[in-house]
Amino acid sequence: MKPFENLTVLDFTQFTSGPMCTSIMGDLGAEVIKIENPPYGDNNRYNPPSKNKNTCYISSLDHNKRSVLLNLKDERQKEIFFKMVETADVVVENFKAGTMEKFGCGYEKLKEINPQIVFASISGFGQTGPWKSRAAYDVVVQAVSGLMSVTGEKGGRPLRFGVSMADVTSGLMACVATLAALYDAKRTGVGRYIDLGMMDNVFALLEQPVTSYGITGIAAKPNGNRHPSAVPFAAFSCKRRVQVVICAFTDHDFAALCKILGYPEISDNPKFLTRNLRFKHEDECYDILCDLVKDWDAQELIEELNAKGIVCAKVNKVSEVYNMEQVAVRNMIVDAKWPDGTKVKIPGQPIKLSDMEEVAEYPVSPLGYDTIEVLSRYEETQIIHEIFDPILKESAELAAVRSEHLN
Amino acid sequence: MKPFENLTVLDFTQFTSGPMCTSIMGDLGAEVIKIENPPYGDNNRYNPPSKNKNTCYISSLDHNKRSVLLNLKDERQKEIFFKMVETADVVVENFKAGTMEKFGCGYEKLKEINPQIVFASISGFGQTGPWKSRAAYDVVVQAVSGLMSVTGEKGGRPLRFGVSMADVTSGLMACVATLAALYDAKRTGVGRYIDLGMMDNVFALLEQPVTSYGITGIAAKPNGNRHPSAVPFAAFSCKRRVQVVICAFTDHDFAALCKILGYPEISDNPKFLTRNLRFKHEDECYDILCDLVKDWDAQELIEELNAKGIVCAKVNKVSEVYNMEQVAVRNMIVDAKWPDGTKVKIPGQPIKLSDMEEVAEYPVSPLGYDTIEVLSRYEETQIIHEIFDPILKESAELAAVRSEHLN
Repeated sequence: MKPFENLTVLDFTQFTSGPMCTSIMGDLGAEVIKIENPPYGDNNRYNPPSKNKNTCYISSLDHNKRSVLLNLKDERQKEIFFKMVETADVVVENFKAGTMEKFGCGYEKLKEINPQIVFASISGFGQTGPWKSRAAYDVVVQAVSGLMSVTGEKGGRPLRFGVSMADVTSGLMACVATLAALYDAKRTGVGRYIDLGMMDNVFALLEQPVTSYGITGIAAKPNGNRHPSAVPFAAFSCKRRVQVVICAFTDHDFAALCKILGYPEISDNPKFLTRNLRFKHEDECYDILCDLVKDWDAQELIEELNAKGIVCAKVNKVSEVYNMEQVAVRNMIVDAKWPDGTKVKIPGQPIKLSDMEEVAEYPVSPLGYDTIEVLSRYEETQIIHEIFDPILKESAELAAVRSEHLN
Repeated sequence: MKPFENLTVLDFTQFTSGPMCTSIMGDLGAEVIKIENPPYGDNNRYNPPSKNKNTCYISSLDHNKRSVLLNLKDERQKEIFFKMVETADVVVENFKAGTMEKFGCGYEKLKEINPQIVFASISGFGQTGPWKSRAAYDVVVQAVSGLMSVTGEKGGRPLRFGVSMADVTSGLMACVATLAALYDAKRTGVGRYIDLGMMDNVFALLEQPVTSYGITGIAAKPNGNRHPSAVPFAAFSCKRRVQVVICAFTDHDFAALCKILGYPEISDNPKFLTRNLRFKHEDECYDILCDLVKDWDAQELIEELNAKGIVCAKVNKVSEVYNMEQVAVRNMIVDAKWPDGTKVKIPGQPIKLSDMEEVAEYPVSPLGYDTIEVLSRYEETQIIHEIFDPILKESAELAAVRSEHLN
């Protein structure tokens, strides 16, 4: 049984951060109603790559959600939304700060309708302070927060993480905040407003570089693939440039590593006797090891290291991860299934709970697909048809044109 | 009021992933009892940097927690732990798979004592599958999951993220899972077991490269600071190599950017007329822009771009983020306060809830600091003293020796 059966989430999110938050709730059984603005809805419905016009982003971030077209600027539609709020548990949005208030649908208004409602806002820099109105994409938050400044080659320029980490971690943190408020709301009968700033979140997750700076006054810099203090603890290049991560920073593991590499005497070198000494002579230690490792076949080296209990791993491409038995056993690749039968492979849900069955298919709704069915719960079906049939028709036509470039 | 007042968490976590999970619960009001193995406790108590022997890692990951020394291998101490389980809500651990069972303290045993208990295990690769017994550090998970393979300079080797993202995101996901199970447990009276694998989690958060590969069969590679499809959307080097992120990928913003840079005619170049065309001639477009941007003063450029609403930002060092007014207004730097009066600056809690006051100081406990006080709730104080006084004395002596290298 899924933990969030009976939970209803009204989801105004788009792009990545917000959808990540609500997709977890959907996977865990909540009914997530993705409310999209007509005629186009979430921009991610038009971003390649795609399969039969069904896009990658929507498949991976908006599965297990219903899609409803609804325009908060229209008074009749807004009244229907207010009826939805009466029985909903959670509202999540990631508009620019102040947008929901501009629609007359801010937290103050919604809690009058339902005092238990939990309302989460995700924004670039939070709802207060001099930067509150600034727009932010993932890379902007990576840049401003200091995240980029600690990533990159030693001596090189700062680099962005190759995954939208500011977005996805902010979605996760918003999910934590929402569940905390929800736990409390069920006990006290009173909901909460959540003001989640992506910048706050990423700065907090930096953690070690921030606290370390507070103590030492030294700002961390890009450090390639090396650990800031443990030696050796880095990625090494083997034969054919295959990269292997080796973590042999204890004296015992270092000695075992040198033995495997065929030069046990290296660990007797007075410069490398302890972890602190190896750190002091870091460059020299890495120069020697890199030279020894470079002609090894990666797979052979990994087997030798594993046999001695030295923590190591190959640096995998996504294509290699796809084929790992461990990934299959853990059910970490599933299908997002669209109503037209299209299946898109997406990452599975990493939350594994006892008494909850693993599923291999997650449904995905096209734009507006559930409008009539869902909204008919809140208003007479005839009225819903009257209001939404023309909207759905126009939306379908315009979205088709805007999707022309998609495969 | 904090949402988790009345919530008790028994916390067997160490290093980074687990402590990140329980520190959020502590910040939000839970009583988190960090149970450490005598005599040394969490290894992070001995890792530099530190201030008056109080370490950076413990300050930032283990604030708002009590510290109790307790050895599960000792039957009398284990009995006390079982009494703690009777009234606790949550247990979190990040030992190697199977360790809690070996102590006779696995989920099956604990749920006999308290059927509502929620028990979360965080491990490198999860509790099932051929990799379940493998040890994993953050960088190993970054390597195996494919995360490193998409980060780095274009044409260069894969790079690790400069922050322990596999650890911190797994802590966050474990927190989501725990709160989901807790929400359900309060409703049904039945707890859950959570099997959170760091590898599963990071693979799921990769998201776009995973889904994209499923559609295109092309594995993403390091791409420097450029967005995979929007142009221009990257970091640029200004005067004195100061880096600025500029996101001007819409036709309107691209034209405005070219005008600011003094060459409006660039946006009329037939090769750069649309987003798709710019992506097709990506290298040429970036070559021209990099050349134009490199002699600009970063601050002046940012002001011009902001005035035209073009999304941009300076790539900050941690030292610069420390001094931002936005960070101060958002209360994102707070003090971890140790009983000896030492204050260590740490990132604040990014979860901002209505009706919850911001605090500027988070208490931190030294090793074993709360042992007598906390355990006396579960057993006669005299017996607690009898068992734990010698343990505390020995621990203090040995830990002092092991801390000798710390400032």
